[in-house]
Amino acid sequence: MTEATTAAPPASAVPFDRWLAARGERAEQALERMLPPAGAHPARLHEAMRYAVLGGGKRVRPLLVYAAGEAGAAPAAALDCAACAVELVHAYSLVHDDLPCMDDDVLRRGRPTVHVQYGEALAMLVGDALQALAFEALAATAAHGAGASATAAMVAELARAAGSQGMAGGQAIDLASVGATLGREAIEDMHRRKTGALLRASVRLGGLCAADAGAAAADSHARRMQALDRYADAIGLAFQVVDDILDVEGDAATLGKTAGKDAKQSKPTYVTAVGLDAARRLAGQLREQAREAIAPLGEAGRRLAGLADLIVLRKS
Amino acid sequence: MTEATTAAPPASAVPFDRWLAARGERAEQALERMLPPAGAHPARLHEAMRYAVLGGGKRVRPLLVYAAGEAGAAPAAALDCAACAVELVHAYSLVHDDLPCMDDDVLRRGRPTVHVQYGEALAMLVGDALQALAFEALAATAAHGAGASATAAMVAELARAAGSQGMAGGQAIDLASVGATLGREAIEDMHRRKTGALLRASVRLGGLCAADAGAAAADSHARRMQALDRYADAIGLAFQVVDDILDVEGDAATLGKTAGKDAKQSKPTYVTAVGLDAARRLAGQLREQAREAIAPLGEAGRRLAGLADLIVLRKS
Repeated sequence: MTEATTAAPPASAVPFDRWLAARGERAEQALERMLPPAGAHPARLHEAMRYAVLGGGKRVRPLLVYAAGEAGAAPAAALDCAACAVELVHAYSLVHDDLPCMDDDVLRRGRPTVHVQYGEALAMLVGDALQALAFEALAATAAHGAGASATAAMVAELARAAGSQGMAGGQAIDLASVGATLGREAIEDMHRRKTGALLRASVRLGGLCAADAGAAAADSHARRMQALDRYADAIGLAFQVVDDILDVEGDAATLGKTAGKDAKQSKPTYVTAVGLDAARRLAGQLREQAREAIAPLGEAGRRLAGLADLIVLRKS
Repeated sequence: MTEATTAAPPASAVPFDRWLAARGERAEQALERMLPPAGAHPARLHEAMRYAVLGGGKRVRPLLVYAAGEAGAAPAAALDCAACAVELVHAYSLVHDDLPCMDDDVLRRGRPTVHVQYGEALAMLVGDALQALAFEALAATAAHGAGASATAAMVAELARAAGSQGMAGGQAIDLASVGATLGREAIEDMHRRKTGALLRASVRLGGLCAADAGAAAADSHARRMQALDRYADAIGLAFQVVDDILDVEGDAATLGKTAGKDAKQSKPTYVTAVGLDAARRLAGQLREQAREAIAPLGEAGRRLAGLADLIVLRKS
């Protein structure tokens, strides 16, 4: 799906901010190429798909793919495919989540949500088509240096992360929990599915792209995947804890979406379960756990450490 | 995903009706195993997914997978995975299609539709999770004898068939065409995407499961795929033409869904475009084309010929 196969420069050579901007831009371009042109038949669907995906979003999941993949010298073109895949799943989930039968949200990234702009029926099809496109993007890793076995493993991984025991399952629990009081463990379980599973998959997909790369491959790959797993567990939960904190603290201007929404909808959150202070402490602990998990990767894990900071310290 | 790896008996040994019943049952069991148990957390989502998939449906797409795969001696366990994948995509599309924002249907296979039974929000998640499960099932072909390269090719194939240039795209065109007058070519284009793409993918996935099988593999596989492609084109269109005919002719009792629905919703169909007689003639011609396409496969194509008859001559 992409022409660019230049290997990434060594992690140490580029300051984190510049790496972040470069990979963010790279993800943007990969998504731009992966999405059908707005004029392709059926044009309105394709226009709406592009509206849903392009020109917004922090691209946290693609950045995790790149950081994890580059820690293992994965082929850059395969990482582009996997980065697209996780972001397309994320984008589809937002479109469906915003629908009237779900959260009924009219504002996303400071713009009208897809169903407000294009109608409910088309918004549903946009989400459906984006999920399919995610797997098409991931399948393309096989032709871009990842190796077909790694591709098959990645498809299984992303499917589980997106499915009924992952993201979609977390949303079902979220639905059922409106007005309920959940304890800390139940909230954690919901978060790990709803948001954590896809973040975790992003890290693992990056790692899996590197399965065939390098010399003393099998052994060092297994150890790298272990470190990535622990890191992914920590940041997966941290992300949603911080989201819950921001939902209480933030305002609509910074978030680009309606603040205090969860409270208004009587949804249990980490903050309602343990309080704001405990939630903040947990976020800090998870950031430490994430940094410790990737310590064995040395310099190669530096980008991942930076992303853990970004996730926990973000203001929106 | 399955324990059963017994090779299929030679096509000539078993009468078509018995083959049909056996493969239908096999698909049912594979789906039963592939779907998470109803008690698995989140239980209501899993219960609804099983409600949407099990205990109904003609399993035309799985049967096409088996027939095409057995024509090339594909591993039976890989065919089970691919058969699940196409049926799960079909099932998800029905759940979303029935939603109030789409066709707003309350009856499917003689039972309340998923959103009537479980609510709109959960029905949307059921569809989303079933699509993810389809790709999980397909990824499992790699571990069941299909070969990882074939698996990667199959994922790309199914994703395209389900996505914005396939099924979801066809539904977007369908949405936009309400109240419009479409010519024969535009109707064909819509049908080829909306229904044809997934039927075509079913045939091709069966064929691709056999990519690694047999002796003089590469050459005979390429010729078999050519024959399957032509067959798939014909039956893909035939299926929807017959659907359009049955929508006019049928009654709710036979169809298990509301008859005359398309006409009531002012949707253009093959019958409105060319008339009932011409639609019937076309169905007959497509059946002939399908049979001719697989003539080069000889005895190995006998099941596919039987399925072409089934698709064109069905009464519901």
